[in-house]
Amino acid sequence: MPRVTFNPGARTIEAGEGELLLKVAARAGLPLRSPCGGKGSCGKCAVVVCPAPEPTPHEREALGDEGLALGLRCACQARITEDTEVDVPTEALLYDERILVDAASGGRPAVPAVRVVEFELAEPSLDDPVDDLRRLAAGVAGGAALEAPLEVLRRLPAALRENSFRGSAAVEGRRLLAVLPPGSADRVLGAAFDLGTTTLAGALVSMVSGDVLATSSRANPQGVLGDDVITRSDHARKGQAELDELRAKVTSAFDEMLGEMLAAALGDPERGDVYRVSVAGNTVMTHLFLGVSPEHIAVVPFTPAATGGVRLPASEAGIRASGSASVMTLPCVAGYIGGDIVGGMLAAGVHELHGVTLYIDIGTNGEVVLARDGDLYACSVAAGPAFEGARISQGMRAAAGAIDSVKLEGGDVLLSTVGGASACGICGTGLIDTAALLLESGLLDLYGLLAEPGAEPDGLPDALRGRMVDHDGKAAFRLSGEGDEAIHLTQKDVRELQLAKGAVAAGVMTLLGDLDLGPADVDSVLLAGGFGTFVDRENVLRVGLLPSGIDPSCIHFVGNAAAAGARMTLVSESHERRAEEIARAVRYVELSGRADFQMTFADAMLFPEA
Amino acid sequence: MPRVTFNPGARTIEAGEGELLLKVAARAGLPLRSPCGGKGSCGKCAVVVCPAPEPTPHEREALGDEGLALGLRCACQARITEDTEVDVPTEALLYDERILVDAASGGRPAVPAVRVVEFELAEPSLDDPVDDLRRLAAGVAGGAALEAPLEVLRRLPAALRENSFRGSAAVEGRRLLAVLPPGSADRVLGAAFDLGTTTLAGALVSMVSGDVLATSSRANPQGVLGDDVITRSDHARKGQAELDELRAKVTSAFDEMLGEMLAAALGDPERGDVYRVSVAGNTVMTHLFLGVSPEHIAVVPFTPAATGGVRLPASEAGIRASGSASVMTLPCVAGYIGGDIVGGMLAAGVHELHGVTLYIDIGTNGEVVLARDGDLYACSVAAGPAFEGARISQGMRAAAGAIDSVKLEGGDVLLSTVGGASACGICGTGLIDTAALLLESGLLDLYGLLAEPGAEPDGLPDALRGRMVDHDGKAAFRLSGEGDEAIHLTQKDVRELQLAKGAVAAGVMTLLGDLDLGPADVDSVLLAGGFGTFVDRENVLRVGLLPSGIDPSCIHFVGNAAAAGARMTLVSESHERRAEEIARAVRYVELSGRADFQMTFADAMLFPEA
Repeated sequence: MPRVTFNPGARTIEAGEGELLLKVAARAGLPLRSPCGGKGSCGKCAVVVCPAPEPTPHEREALGDEGLALGLRCACQARITEDTEVDVPTEALLYDERILVDAASGGRPAVPAVRVVEFELAEPSLDDPVDDLRRLAAGVAGGAALEAPLEVLRRLPAALRENSFRGSAAVEGRRLLAVLPPGSADRVLGAAFDLGTTTLAGALVSMVSGDVLATSSRANPQGVLGDDVITRSDHARKGQAELDELRAKVTSAFDEMLGEMLAAALGDPERGDVYRVSVAGNTVMTHLFLGVSPEHIAVVPFTPAATGGVRLPASEAGIRASGSASVMTLPCVAGYIGGDIVGGMLAAGVHELHGVTLYIDIGTNGEVVLARDGDLYACSVAAGPAFEGARISQGMRAAAGAIDSVKLEGGDVLLSTVGGASACGICGTGLIDTAALLLESGLLDLYGLLAEPGAEPDGLPDALRGRMVDHDGKAAFRLSGEGDEAIHLTQKDVRELQLAKGAVAAGVMTLLGDLDLGPADVDSVLLAGGFGTFVDRENVLRVGLLPSGIDPSCIHFVGNAAAAGARMTLVSESHERRAEEIARAVRYVELSGRADFQMTFADAMLFPEA
Repeated sequence: MPRVTFNPGARTIEAGEGELLLKVAARAGLPLRSPCGGKGSCGKCAVVVCPAPEPTPHEREALGDEGLALGLRCACQARITEDTEVDVPTEALLYDERILVDAASGGRPAVPAVRVVEFELAEPSLDDPVDDLRRLAAGVAGGAALEAPLEVLRRLPAALRENSFRGSAAVEGRRLLAVLPPGSADRVLGAAFDLGTTTLAGALVSMVSGDVLATSSRANPQGVLGDDVITRSDHARKGQAELDELRAKVTSAFDEMLGEMLAAALGDPERGDVYRVSVAGNTVMTHLFLGVSPEHIAVVPFTPAATGGVRLPASEAGIRASGSASVMTLPCVAGYIGGDIVGGMLAAGVHELHGVTLYIDIGTNGEVVLARDGDLYACSVAAGPAFEGARISQGMRAAAGAIDSVKLEGGDVLLSTVGGASACGICGTGLIDTAALLLESGLLDLYGLLAEPGAEPDGLPDALRGRMVDHDGKAAFRLSGEGDEAIHLTQKDVRELQLAKGAVAAGVMTLLGDLDLGPADVDSVLLAGGFGTFVDRENVLRVGLLPSGIDPSCIHFVGNAAAAGARMTLVSESHERRAEEIARAVRYVELSGRADFQMTFADAMLFPEA
C-alpha cells in the first residue's frame, strides 16, 4: 500500500490504493478545511503534493496554473496511488490557531514541559567546592534549585565526570530528569496515549521538537471483560483481583505499544529515553488505568474518586521508561465527561473560540460540550455504540474495508471504503449516509420503519430498485455485494441508529435550551471520535444527529482530538495547565432524571422531515 | 533501674541508681541551665520532682521553703533512686526560645508538617456530584486542591463511605496522606533518626502533639565495614554491591528500630500509621543512606553529589511505613558539614542568636560553626575519634559505666560514671577531666608528656600518689581499679587527646581569625555531641579544647542537638524550611591546604599554661 508522509512532523501513514488525500490526512490527525464539502471548488484544502497527480478540472479552476506548478493540489480531489510526500500549509488546517499543528505535527511547544539544556560547567575545586547538583543548577537553571529523583542523583557524579562536566540536561519544571552526553536533545522522548474504551492509540513524540516519531494502536484488551464502561465497572467492583486484572490489561498494552514504537522509530532503543507519558481517557477508563475502582461512577450519583489530573512514577503505572519518568492522566470533569473530552477541547481550542460552539465526541457515550464565548457546559448521553459499528449487524469501526461513504451519483450507488479496501462492513459515517439515502428515497419513514422487502415506492432511483430484501424474516436494505458477501442495513440497525443519534441530538437541544439558545445560534459544530474521518454535513442533519436549524457549513470533523490533546499536554507545560483549567471551568449538566431531556430524547429518535 | 518521666512530652528514660537528674535530663535531650556549674547555688536548673528527694543545704538556700514545698529541686543536686516524674519548666531549659522544648519534648509545632483535620461532608447527590477528592478538599483544605498519592486515592471512596463521609484527614502541604476514622489524630505518627557514623538514634513522634512516644538506639551496623566515613567511602567506591551493602545496613536498622519503637509505644501497631520520617546525618552518611556514592567527598575537592534535603517515598528508602509516607534527609552544607550540624544549628537556634556564638559538634570529625549576629561560618577538622572513646586504650562512648567525670575533692579522686554503673571505661568528658587533673598536678607537661612511672612531683596530692605506673613499657596514669579491672590513661591516649582537642581549637581560632575576632569576643559556646552529658567548663579550657580567653561561664553543653533538629524538621513545616535556609546561609570555610591552619593546629596540640 502506498505511504504518505505529512510535513511538518514527518508523520507517515499508509493509504488505500486510490484513497482521497483528505481522508488520509484526517486519519493522520490533520483535519483539513473543506468548506465546499469536498467538491474541489474552494481550494481551501490545498496542500503541496509530491509527486503531484494530474489535476482535475475543479483543481485547475480553484488553484490556477501557478498553484498547480508549485505542486498544490486539493486534498479533496487528489487520490493516492504511490508513496507521496505532502506539505501541509497552516492555512489548510481546520484550525487557524495552529493549535493542532503545533502539538500534533511538529511544532515546538512554546513552554516545553521538558527542557533540554546544553551545559558546560567549571570543574569543582577547593575554591569552588559546590555540590554537583547545585553546580549543574547554576549552569542549566540560572541558579534556581533543581530537585533530582534518587535514580538521577545516584548517576549524577559519574554522568558529569564522564564528559568533563559538559552535557545535556533534561529538566521538567524543577526536576532534573537526566544528565546525558552533550548533544543528546533528540534522545529525550515522551509518549502520548489515547485510552479509548474500544481502541488504544499511542504516539512516540520528541519532547523537544514535538515531532511524532511513531504511532501504534490496538483494540483495548479490556474488551474481553466487557464492551462498555458499565460492564467493566461491574467487573472491577467484584474485587481487587478483578480490578487489578483490568488495570494490568491496559498498562501492559501501553508498555508493549511503547516498545513497538521505540523499535519502529529507533531500532533497538533504550527505554530509558522516555521521560514523560500522558494518558487521555474517559473517567472510568482513567480510574481503571490508575487501579482506582470506578464502581461509584457506575451508579447514581455517578461519583468519581477524583477528577484532577494524576501524576505518578512510570514504574508505578507499569510502564517501563526512564527511572525519572512520570505518567500523567488528563484531568476529567465528571463521571461521564473524561480526560478524552478535556484533551479534545484543548486541542480544538474550544475554550478560546468566540460565539457558540458545539464540541461533540460520538462514541458509546456521546459527550456534548457547548462553549459560549469561553463559558463551557457539558453533558453526557448514552448514545450506544452504533456509530462505532457495535450492535450494528455488519457494523465495524472506521478501519480498512469499512464503508464510510454512500452516495447516489449519476444514477449509481457509489460506495467508498476506508483505505480503498474491499467492503467488509459499515462504519458510523456509512451508517449516516445510508440512512439519509433511504430517507430521501422513501425506503425509510420518519418513524424509522424500513419499507417492506421488494418495495419500490414512486420515484425510486433505478439504482435502489430491488435492494429491499428479506433478511432473517425482517426487512433489510442491501448496501453492497451479493449472497454471503452482501452487506445489509437491517431494521434493528436503524433502531440502534435512532437511539444513538436521538441521544446526541437531545443532549445538544437540552444544553442549547438551558442557555436559551436555538440551533440557529450555533456558529460551529466540531465532531470528534472514531466513527469515520469524512462526514457528509447534509446527511448529519438529514438523519437528525444534529437538530435541524444548524447551518451545515459550520459542521467540521476534527478526528481524534483527544489524542491530539494528549500529545499537547505531553510536550507543553502551558497546555498541561490549560487542560486542568478547562476541566475545572466546565459546568457539568446532569441529564439523568431530567424529564425534559427524556421528552426531547423521545422526539429526537424520530427522523426529521425532509 | 529507676525510670524518669519528663513532662511535658512524657519522655521516659532509665536512670542509673543515684544518677544526677541533670545528667539524666541531658541524656533525655533536655539540656538544663547550670550557670553555677552544678553547685546547686543558682537554682536555675530547678524542676518539679515527684517523689521529691530530701533537699540538700544548697537547695534549701537556693529554692526556699516555698519552692521546696512545691516539689522544686535543683537537677544538679537531685539524685534518682526510684521511679520519678519530672516537670520541666521552660525557664529551666538551656534555651529561652522554647525551640528545643517545642519540638523535642511535647510542644505542638506552630506550622505542623502534617495537619490532621476532622471532617464531616455532605454525601454526594445528583445535585452535588463532585468527586470524592474535591469534596474532601472542600471540607479539609477550604477548597484548595488536594493531591492524593495513588494508594490513598485507591482507598478514598471506601474510606469516605465506611464512616458516612466523616473522618480524620491527614494532610501534608497539599498532599492527602490518609483518610482515617473520626478522631484518629493520635494515630498519625512520624519518626526522626539521628544517623551517626557510630550510633543510630531514633524517636517515634506524634505528628500532632510533637510528643516523643518511644526512642531506640543502636550502634551503626556499618561499623563492621569501617569506623570512619573515609573507610566507608573507600568501601562504597569499590562497586555497586558494596554501596548497596552499606546502604542496606542502615536502612534495615532504621526499619527495625521503627518496628521496635512502634511495639514499645503501641503494642502491636500498624506500620501504616507512620507518615513521615526525617534523617539527620553527616554528608557522607546521608549519601550512603540514599545509596549515592560519597566517593568524591573522600578526595579533594570533597564534592558531594547534592547537599539539599532529599525527599523520597519511604518504600524507596527501605523503611516500611504508610504507603503515602515520605522520608526526608536534612540538608547538608558541604562534604564535611552535614545535616547533623544543620539540625543542631536549628535546634540550638544558632542562626537567631545575637553576638558571637560557637556551635561545636565533637566527634570523629569536629565541626565548628561560628555565628555572628545571624551570619554563619563553618569549618570541619579531623578531630579523630578520641572524644567518642575510640583509639583511647580504654575509651568508650558515654554509655553506662563510662567514667564521665573525674574530680579531686576533699583529698580524694571522685569518679562518676554514666548511669552510676561500675566503671568499665572512659568517655570524652572523663578524658578531659583526667587530663586537666594531670596537668594541674604536674603529672603531665605542656608538651603532652606523662611523668615517668613512680613519679611524684612536689606538691602532688596524696590521692594521686602511686598512680603513675608502667603500662606495657610506657608511662600510664591509673584512674581507677586494680589489676585486671584497672582503668588507665596511657601516653598514647594523651597523644590522641592532643590531636583531637588541638584540631578543634585550631578550627575555632582560624574561624575567629578570619573574622578578626578573638576568644574574648565569644559570647557563647555550645558543645554538642556524644562525648558526655556534663562537662566541666574550666577543664575544657584547661586542656585547650577551646582557646584560652573564652569566658568559661559562656560554655554550654547541648547534648544531641542533631537529633532534636531531626525531630523539629519532622513535625514542623517552618522548621523544615528553616533548615534549608540555614544550610544555604552557611559559608563553608575550607581549611584543607591552608598553611595558617596547619601552624595553628601544631601550636594547639600543646597544652596551655595554667
